[in-house]
Amino acid sequence: MPLYHQPVDAAEVPRFAGHSTFMRLPSVATAEGLDIALVGIPWDGGTTNRAGARHGPREVRNLSSLMRSAHHVSGIAPYEIANIADVGDLSVNPINLLDGMERIEKGMAQIVANGALPLSVGGDHLTTLPVLRSVSGGLRAVGNPLGMIQFDAHSDTNDTYFGGNRYTHGTPFRRAIEEGLLDPTRIVQIGIRGSVYGPGEHDWAKAQGVRIIYMEEFIRRGPDDVMAEATQIVGCQPTYVTFDVDAIDPSMAPGTGTPEIGGLTTREAQQMLRLLHPVNIVGADVVEVAPPLDVGGMTALVGATVMFELLCIIANQVRQERSG
Amino acid sequence: MPLYHQPVDAAEVPRFAGHSTFMRLPSVATAEGLDIALVGIPWDGGTTNRAGARHGPREVRNLSSLMRSAHHVSGIAPYEIANIADVGDLSVNPINLLDGMERIEKGMAQIVANGALPLSVGGDHLTTLPVLRSVSGGLRAVGNPLGMIQFDAHSDTNDTYFGGNRYTHGTPFRRAIEEGLLDPTRIVQIGIRGSVYGPGEHDWAKAQGVRIIYMEEFIRRGPDDVMAEATQIVGCQPTYVTFDVDAIDPSMAPGTGTPEIGGLTTREAQQMLRLLHPVNIVGADVVEVAPPLDVGGMTALVGATVMFELLCIIANQVRQERSG
Amino acid sequence: MPLYHQPVDAAEVPRFAGHSTFMRLPSVATAEGLDIALVGIPWDGGTTNRAGARHGPREVRNLSSLMRSAHHVSGIAPYEIANIADVGDLSVNPINLLDGMERIEKGMAQIVANGALPLSVGGDHLTTLPVLRSVSGGLRAVGNPLGMIQFDAHSDTNDTYFGGNRYTHGTPFRRAIEEGLLDPTRIVQIGIRGSVYGPGEHDWAKAQGVRIIYMEEFIRRGPDDVMAEATQIVGCQPTYVTFDVDAIDPSMAPGTGTPEIGGLTTREAQQMLRLLHPVNIVGADVVEVAPPLDVGGMTALVGATVMFELLCIIANQVRQERSG
Amino acid sequence: MPLYHQPVDAAEVPRFAGHSTFMRLPSVATAEGLDIALVGIPWDGGTTNRAGARHGPREVRNLSSLMRSAHHVSGIAPYEIANIADVGDLSVNPINLLDGMERIEKGMAQIVANGALPLSVGGDHLTTLPVLRSVSGGLRAVGNPLGMIQFDAHSDTNDTYFGGNRYTHGTPFRRAIEEGLLDPTRIVQIGIRGSVYGPGEHDWAKAQGVRIIYMEEFIRRGPDDVMAEATQIVGCQPTYVTFDVDAIDPSMAPGTGTPEIGGLTTREAQQMLRLLHPVNIVGADVVEVAPPLDVGGMTALVGATVMFELLCIIANQVRQERSG
Amino acid sequence: MPLYHQPVDAAEVPRFAGHSTFMRLPSVATAEGLDIALVGIPWDGGTTNRAGARHGPREVRNLSSLMRSAHHVSGIAPYEIANIADVGDLSVNPINLLDGMERIEKGMAQIVANGALPLSVGGDHLTTLPVLRSVSGGLRAVGNPLGMIQFDAHSDTNDTYFGGNRYTHGTPFRRAIEEGLLDPTRIVQIGIRGSVYGPGEHDWAKAQGVRIIYMEEFIRRGPDDVMAEATQIVGCQPTYVTFDVDAIDPSMAPGTGTPEIGGLTTREAQQMLRLLHPVNIVGADVVEVAPPLDVGGMTALVGATVMFELLCIIANQVRQERSG
Amino acid sequence: MPLYHQPVDAAEVPRFAGHSTFMRLPSVATAEGLDIALVGIPWDGGTTNRAGARHGPREVRNLSSLMRSAHHVSGIAPYEIANIADVGDLSVNPINLLDGMERIEKGMAQIVANGALPLSVGGDHLTTLPVLRSVSGGLRAVGNPLGMIQFDAHSDTNDTYFGGNRYTHGTPFRRAIEEGLLDPTRIVQIGIRGSVYGPGEHDWAKAQGVRIIYMEEFIRRGPDDVMAEATQIVGCQPTYVTFDVDAIDPSMAPGTGTPEIGGLTTREAQQMLRLLHPVNIVGADVVEVAPPLDVGGMTALVGATVMFELLCIIANQVRQERSG
Repeated sequence: MPLYHQPVDAAEVPRFAGHSTFMRLPSVATAEGLDIALVGIPWDGGTTNRAGARHGPREVRNLSSLMRSAHHVSGIAPYEIANIADVGDLSVNPINLLDGMERIEKGMAQIVANGALPLSVGGDHLTTLPVLRSVSGGLRAVGNPLGMIQFDAHSDTNDTYFGGNRYTHGTPFRRAIEEGLLDPTRIVQIGIRGSVYGPGEHDWAKAQGVRIIYMEEFIRRGPDDVMAEATQIVGCQPTYVTFDVDAIDPSMAPGTGTPEIGGLTTREAQQMLRLLHPVNIVGADVVEVAPPLDVGGMTALVGATVMFELLCIIANQVRQERSG
Repeated sequence: MPLYHQPVDAAEVPRFAGHSTFMRLPSVATAEGLDIALVGIPWDGGTTNRAGARHGPREVRNLSSLMRSAHHVSGIAPYEIANIADVGDLSVNPINLLDGMERIEKGMAQIVANGALPLSVGGDHLTTLPVLRSVSGGLRAVGNPLGMIQFDAHSDTNDTYFGGNRYTHGTPFRRAIEEGLLDPTRIVQIGIRGSVYGPGEHDWAKAQGVRIIYMEEFIRRGPDDVMAEATQIVGCQPTYVTFDVDAIDPSMAPGTGTPEIGGLTTREAQQMLRLLHPVNIVGADVVEVAPPLDVGGMTALVGATVMFELLCIIANQVRQERSG
Repeated sequence: MPLYHQPVDAAEVPRFAGHSTFMRLPSVATAEGLDIALVGIPWDGGTTNRAGARHGPREVRNLSSLMRSAHHVSGIAPYEIANIADVGDLSVNPINLLDGMERIEKGMAQIVANGALPLSVGGDHLTTLPVLRSVSGGLRAVGNPLGMIQFDAHSDTNDTYFGGNRYTHGTPFRRAIEEGLLDPTRIVQIGIRGSVYGPGEHDWAKAQGVRIIYMEEFIRRGPDDVMAEATQIVGCQPTYVTFDVDAIDPSMAPGTGTPEIGGLTTREAQQMLRLLHPVNIVGADVVEVAPPLDVGGMTALVGATVMFELLCIIANQVRQERSG
Repeated sequence: MPLYHQPVDAAEVPRFAGHSTFMRLPSVATAEGLDIALVGIPWDGGTTNRAGARHGPREVRNLSSLMRSAHHVSGIAPYEIANIADVGDLSVNPINLLDGMERIEKGMAQIVANGALPLSVGGDHLTTLPVLRSVSGGLRAVGNPLGMIQFDAHSDTNDTYFGGNRYTHGTPFRRAIEEGLLDPTRIVQIGIRGSVYGPGEHDWAKAQGVRIIYMEEFIRRGPDDVMAEATQIVGCQPTYVTFDVDAIDPSMAPGTGTPEIGGLTTREAQQMLRLLHPVNIVGADVVEVAPPLDVGGMTALVGATVMFELLCIIANQVRQERSG
Repeated sequence: MPLYHQPVDAAEVPRFAGHSTFMRLPSVATAEGLDIALVGIPWDGGTTNRAGARHGPREVRNLSSLMRSAHHVSGIAPYEIANIADVGDLSVNPINLLDGMERIEKGMAQIVANGALPLSVGGDHLTTLPVLRSVSGGLRAVGNPLGMIQFDAHSDTNDTYFGGNRYTHGTPFRRAIEEGLLDPTRIVQIGIRGSVYGPGEHDWAKAQGVRIIYMEEFIRRGPDDVMAEATQIVGCQPTYVTFDVDAIDPSMAPGTGTPEIGGLTTREAQQMLRLLHPVNIVGADVVEVAPPLDVGGMTALVGATVMFELLCIIANQVRQERSG
Repeated sequence: MPLYHQPVDAAEVPRFAGHSTFMRLPSVATAEGLDIALVGIPWDGGTTNRAGARHGPREVRNLSSLMRSAHHVSGIAPYEIANIADVGDLSVNPINLLDGMERIEKGMAQIVANGALPLSVGGDHLTTLPVLRSVSGGLRAVGNPLGMIQFDAHSDTNDTYFGGNRYTHGTPFRRAIEEGLLDPTRIVQIGIRGSVYGPGEHDWAKAQGVRIIYMEEFIRRGPDDVMAEATQIVGCQPTYVTFDVDAIDPSMAPGTGTPEIGGLTTREAQQMLRLLHPVNIVGADVVEVAPPLDVGGMTALVGATVMFELLCIIANQVRQERSG
């Protein structure tokens, strides 16, 4: 009998059968006893243009049925080395922005309080703000500002929209820095690109010390070099990893609200994710998968695979912490 | 030279060419001088489940390019008898519910103040609440509660969602009755169907005097009989007409957030709309067209045609008022 | 061994296997020896708005793989009583309107010269004009103007488009009447509806004696009554049957260039087609199936089934002629 | 605290949130203690043409999130009067037909042994054969042949395919009659239509006493009259209800392997389902929902709603049995 | 108050709101006073296979709503340095090839006569021929043959189709060279690939001096090297830039009539477009975006972004001309 | 008059016209007289998850209409140097796995007996097993185990599924090695990636001597280096080439049952296919194109183009054998 929760075996039960959970893992009521909690945050209340990310968790669960139980490169078998389950979706409120954020913060706080490391699926990028509030205040982070590695087409450090509204999926990291949740000098943003509101759009973030690696710099340097710098910047202090699926090129991830052509390939993204192992990860997410805008489930598949890559890295970290 | 604004002639300029406006009419800056203002309200802030109606105006404009200039049954040629144009979209706020409603109310107030009768395209059904605030306070209604004929699968008279939230696309007409915008004894709801939250879901509305004509009653009686009753109920007092596209069967209008099978056919709906002529219409809308959920533009085509049916009825009313 | 060409048996070879031909019949090089020639006319050169009907024959062939070998109501087994095959597509020219029409006329003339009765799949409705030129001059019609039963949302008797262009899919039957191919007093148009260019759009056709049965009249009278009149009008003289798939409601046939809501149901259409038996049919077609605009192959399936209904009627007529 | 399992309340948790189960009910491990077991049978091993029904349960679960908790016509609130839950999917084998059928039979036998009445979602129509084996042998049926009301475009009483293969989705009820599971004189098939393999395709079934109500007879007589006959034929003896989604017109249910135009409307189907109350139902299913062929989730929505209609009827029967 | 026309600000008006124009710029009646005229050419009369590019301008306008106001790499803010607006669509004729070309030529001549530099969106590639006739005869080119940089999968220098037809989207540049509009020794074609009609298909073009850079050579050399050669070839003489979206790989731009796998990535294309600055551009276009063949708006997004890249380059050229 | 079968000329007959055959070649009844037989195998009986590849041949035929007659890089004009035709689809059985495999083996044996080299389109990857049985026993292979170059995301050397089932699309090459059809030391698998059932999933294959080139090694080394090794491993002995379309990245080939992100680009695949010329090819296939899962025909286009690339290589080999 296995030590930990195991996914349904696709060589016994076909992938299209059975309830749809993240990675076909058991669905559990709370994060108690878990090392890693897989959790959905079905909320896109901060979306300024094309909504749909509220449906992200359901479709990422569906496509995660294609994931098997071990990583073909690292050999990591996460379910052998860590206790992992699907804790369901956080409570949300689709028609009330502030209440929505509060519910997410509280829901995530319970997971963190149980000692589980959260790996969540949004939802739009504003979901990361209440998540950071809970994670940065949790045991792993002990209240210090977190570092962050952000894969994204957009810096998401704008100030306000539509006449002074401060909370949107274009502003979460400005708010997180202002709230002291993130240490801007330990933030690295990779894959940034696309037209901007003005030549100075990123000035504020840069002035805070955020390291923006534009797509063009990434293309010149490549995944290894960029990740060497990124992991050096965040160091060994607690760090959050956030993966906005629009970091990926729209040909590979069309189902997202704000696509920008000329993006990362999945190969590049996978190579970078596998280089996260030196990072002290205290939480991670995949956001902005918007199924109503998707074609053929392509984006949900990318989301599910990115989630599996992150899961392997984090499970290995759990093992190292346990043995170390 | 024509007296009034004319649509682009499809026998001269193909329907796929030129800017996309409602009915291929000119786009004008304000409603000044218009008899009827066609206006978009791209907002779905009140949507509790599947969003997308924010994109409704754009796609209804696109498909309205298939409308020609006269009605094949009544012979009404609206652009010969009334001054009609596309006044663009009202200002909205996708991330702030109360501000969004306020902007809609203000934008609509300007149209009403110009003496134009508004025919709008949502947006979700909550948009009708701020519209009613402006229309009921305008010159045509002089502050008295309005009657309303509502084509819909849902009564939209629920009370609250998600812990006390009073403004959603499931609650607008409870609020409108409470605010004195609508006279419940002069409300007729046609096409109501689908599972309910409980056997008593419509008790409040019925207690106020709202006349709910369930789909099953409609099927038994047919369009003529039902409309005879409906027009008798609203009488000659100012009345608003609201058409939720989910009144129509999902096979004909799949692109909507809350579809219910067993709905009205477009033939039945057209027959009913053509029987609206005795009604004293002070405004009308088509709501809940959600393009990201649509297939092949079917729902936007239904929306555009319903809009044209309403436009013919209203233009004829304008002519009668003018001559009478 | 059967007397006539037989379709592939779906109880032996699955429907998705084998070459795609009309009704899974053999593909033959010419119409020689055939009673009925199934033929494609992949051309939409006359389309004024949304093209795509050029792809109609291929997709109708694909979906015709769902047709079996006998009619469940009449019991007609067409392949037992008539020699029928797929003669391929007529030569067309997608970039030259007049050459395209000429090629279609010539190709159809060869089929007619072989004594086969053509059942074709367009293509847009302008294809019917060159077809009528050949069919009306063929042996069955001996040069007299034909009668015509037309199922359609549009009368297609407009005069010119885009500054004097006389040949479009909105004008074929004006031209056919002018050219003496059709006897206007023996034309019946069923299902006409949708907004018009002006209240007098159909005046010319009516003045010629064309009988237009608008959708609203059809709804009142029903299929039986309408077909009784239609068959009486065309009488026993040679008659062409043309089925524009936009006669059918867009919910059932969305894949067409000029959809109009409030159309015929397939049930009504099938009932009418089965009442064609008294008519002296000299040719028939199904037009305006536009696969790039279709969803889920629905329209091509309607096209294929309408084709099968027509085929059964025509095969039975062949048998009666042979035995009579 | 409620007596029975309750669905998640959509006024508290939005419909897109949380795990996807039938009707948003709890997922339970076995049918123990249940009155009605909702169960998926994700298997299309008997499909002779277009596969995809194996994905039916997952998508019907997704769309069943749109169902609320009471019936708007009958007022039945199933979760107040019966204990109902989602027992997951039966074990299947997508690559071995006979093993697949055996697994289904065994899985269903456990549900029946627990005293629960099964309401299942296929899967193709061959799944009904092993289900009937278990249900007919269960306590409710005590081994006597069952009656059956079948909503379907096809009789499914063919003999063999592809050279002697006896088990396909076109043959289940021939086998069930041969095996003595069904009493052919108590079988009613409603909605049968579409081209046939030959004029005598249904002779065998008719010779056994099966009552086939073709679509054309249905259209003439209407739902009430047809159901009066159907319920009279099956009488008060144990009866199974099977609903092949291709009974419904393809415009409303395009996502199925063998669509036939000219089908039932959902309104007609709902009216008939609501007239099932006199029947002694021992099990029911909805089959042939094939999501890869669906557009916009329309077919899965029909499947989910049919399931809810059946659930209300069966729950009411449970209450009557309990009280009676 | 800004000197020049400004786009609607997406931080004030959401991107889904308001009329759909190129880049959300004002729609103006003529090119008078403009430095750069954005214009649609909704015409695919020259398309030999899959039509649909006639719908290109409308969807590129829609997706151009995702463009912001400055370039994130060059910092160019086009609306600060040049007067730019949307002048609507040129007059076209979808059913008459020669008239269609004439209308395009005339429409473009007016823009050129106003001194505006045209940046157009097709339409198929035959649209470029009448455009070149006007542009090459305009003030900027003073009648000398133009150079051309062409991004494309196909050389488009074939001779005739379908029996002598000289004007198709496969022949424009043969005609343009024959007409003396283009100087073949100053034409560079980049991205050419895909199977050919015969080994000598490109012999004529090469014999004229056209420089064809096949995809394979491009892959070996890379964007920088290829553009160094290309800009050297066209030199400082007036040059036209034409971007056929099928230059891009079909995974990124599926919505086009003649896709060829193995194409340019958008990253490569963007890198090349940004290297156009030394070129003396007198006009540019993006062609062959065919929305009915698109999936999820991906191709229209590529088209809109390529348009923005070109706009930045051209606006900068305008500034340099003005200042220098 | 040409020596060999010629495809329909797209400069005479548009690509959308005429019957749909592979490469628009003639359809012939048997492989007699052919050098290369193009053949479909519409069967996905071994598919453990998402079916649909049974529809592969039909859609690859459709999209192969975009292929022209010569290769733009090698200049090979296959129809000038070899006799090639479409021999239709092999007999299959969609509901009986073992019978299905037997039919495929027999059908392929007839082609091989005619001396034609088969280039087939599946179908799922289990189809390759019966094909190998026939090819390895044919004249070209004279019974010796074949070498194989396999482009694939998966090794397909698992043992059993669903409790001992040995024949699935995940096991064909384990079986082929066990049956002595393939020489494991002459098998090269390129593009392998994606999560695995366990760290040791490929141990058996590696122990047999199969050379697995994982995606990551491929990325490091590139197409030229990898193919140098692959062609060296298979040597000059008879070799089969199998191309599973899931080798290609899902952004380029989404229409397949088991997609894995991070795959080969089509550019890389084309480069490798062009390097196959030293190999002694005795048969080849393209498998796992699943049209119901495809978007916009992208995957079928990739399948058709890969088929054309293979055809050119094989035709050239035929010419060399003939002349040599």
